[in-house]
Amino acid sequence: MITSSSNARIKRIKQLEADKKERDKAGAFVAEGEKLFFEIVKDAPESILEVFVSESAMETLSDEKKAALERFEPETVKDSVFESAALTKTPQGFLAVVKKPSYRLGDVLKREGRLRLLFLETLQDPGNMGTIFRTAEGAGIDMIILCGNCADVFNPKVVRSTMGSVMRVPFAEAKDPTETLGLLKDAGVTTYATFLKASEEIGDITYDERTAVLIGNEAKGLSEATAMKCDHRIRIPMQGKLESLNAAVAAALVMYKDML
Amino acid sequence: MITSSSNARIKRIKQLEADKKERDKAGAFVAEGEKLFFEIVKDAPESILEVFVSESAMETLSDEKKAALERFEPETVKDSVFESAALTKTPQGFLAVVKKPSYRLGDVLKREGRLRLLFLETLQDPGNMGTIFRTAEGAGIDMIILCGNCADVFNPKVVRSTMGSVMRVPFAEAKDPTETLGLLKDAGVTTYATFLKASEEIGDITYDERTAVLIGNEAKGLSEATAMKCDHRIRIPMQGKLESLNAAVAAALVMYKDML
Repeated sequence: MITSSSNARIKRIKQLEADKKERDKAGAFVAEGEKLFFEIVKDAPESILEVFVSESAMETLSDEKKAALERFEPETVKDSVFESAALTKTPQGFLAVVKKPSYRLGDVLKREGRLRLLFLETLQDPGNMGTIFRTAEGAGIDMIILCGNCADVFNPKVVRSTMGSVMRVPFAEAKDPTETLGLLKDAGVTTYATFLKASEEIGDITYDERTAVLIGNEAKGLSEATAMKCDHRIRIPMQGKLESLNAAVAAALVMYKDML
Repeated sequence: MITSSSNARIKRIKQLEADKKERDKAGAFVAEGEKLFFEIVKDAPESILEVFVSESAMETLSDEKKAALERFEPETVKDSVFESAALTKTPQGFLAVVKKPSYRLGDVLKREGRLRLLFLETLQDPGNMGTIFRTAEGAGIDMIILCGNCADVFNPKVVRSTMGSVMRVPFAEAKDPTETLGLLKDAGVTTYATFLKASEEIGDITYDERTAVLIGNEAKGLSEATAMKCDHRIRIPMQGKLESLNAAVAAALVMYKDML
């Protein structure tokens, strides 16, 4: 049992929680919470590297869950130490170090037939990012493309608010939007930029079989440079005196357009 | 100038921020932030009861804004005192005590022709509530009906995340869902419950001219009792292994269904 906050493995967890660079170097992130942990056990057990369970959570665990845990050689952690490593206010007693999944845009673009992609540019709020992953899973998005200075997908707040979708929705980081739009064009994907100044209304268009929709930054929207390189610029109608919709809401509307 | 945190007016602000009962008794709430303040000045100047501006914000204010402020007899507040009263981490120097708007469901139901209502049952997360108000303004919702134990619309976090919509979207609190559904029926409003176990898919239905859509609690969804009393129960299709969508996302999809 780990009884001290200065334990090297506990310190390592805190590092992975706090620092994107450390997560990138290690190719791993921290998943917190019993529900999320058992979702990963179901979806991608091979990606679980280390498991930490608080003393009191271990005591109240059902035999079935204890058996499911065994193969991961869980480390029991004294409650006060666990609380120092957990980020939520009322931790549920589960922390896991998980190998980051990795996907390639090229693999997805090689597929034939229907494609639905979501392209995010400088989407910065972790809560929005998490909600967008969750909605993307529901909408059957084949891949999320992240461009510009987006919130890190493995930021603990993003991971938590995806409700498990972070391990189920493929995503890829793209350095250069222009180059990525070129790859999409070559793969026969039509691009639709969500853009406040667009003249086409979303209700008046029909998505092509292979479609990518683009959503921009919370405050500034999509950059004009990126929007102008897309095949279509579309506007979500807004009544009242609103300047814009919440970015996760706008993303949900463009992802679900076909299904409502 | 107010120079002490124990000033009675500063204490009163903290009370109104923290306590729904105090807000209800006073019929007033606290709006924080320069942008929100000037939106209220535009939309409902008569509802502004008191204005507090931090010393440093007052110094950097444009002449135009100073002139707009004058009629509200703003009180300058020493920066450190202002920060103790503000709830955001980096306060923008504006706090206003604002009279709560008040609307009646009966007045809205009396109108003839097209109606779009959103009925929330036990929607508890302040961030979701704020996002829903913002989306409802964009979607042209005529009124939001709040039922059960919902987040208080004038909770400072809700007010902030509505981005001003809190003063522009009419809403009414309803005690009893059954009674309210009866009023809707009498007014010729068709009710659509968003319900995970529904057999009708949202894409297969067309809203009636007078429509109310219902959204339930974040964790539990709409209560079965309420859902069963509605004219239709509809389901938002979900792929993947998702249990549900975020409540503000689900609300956005049902509100915008017609316009996508």
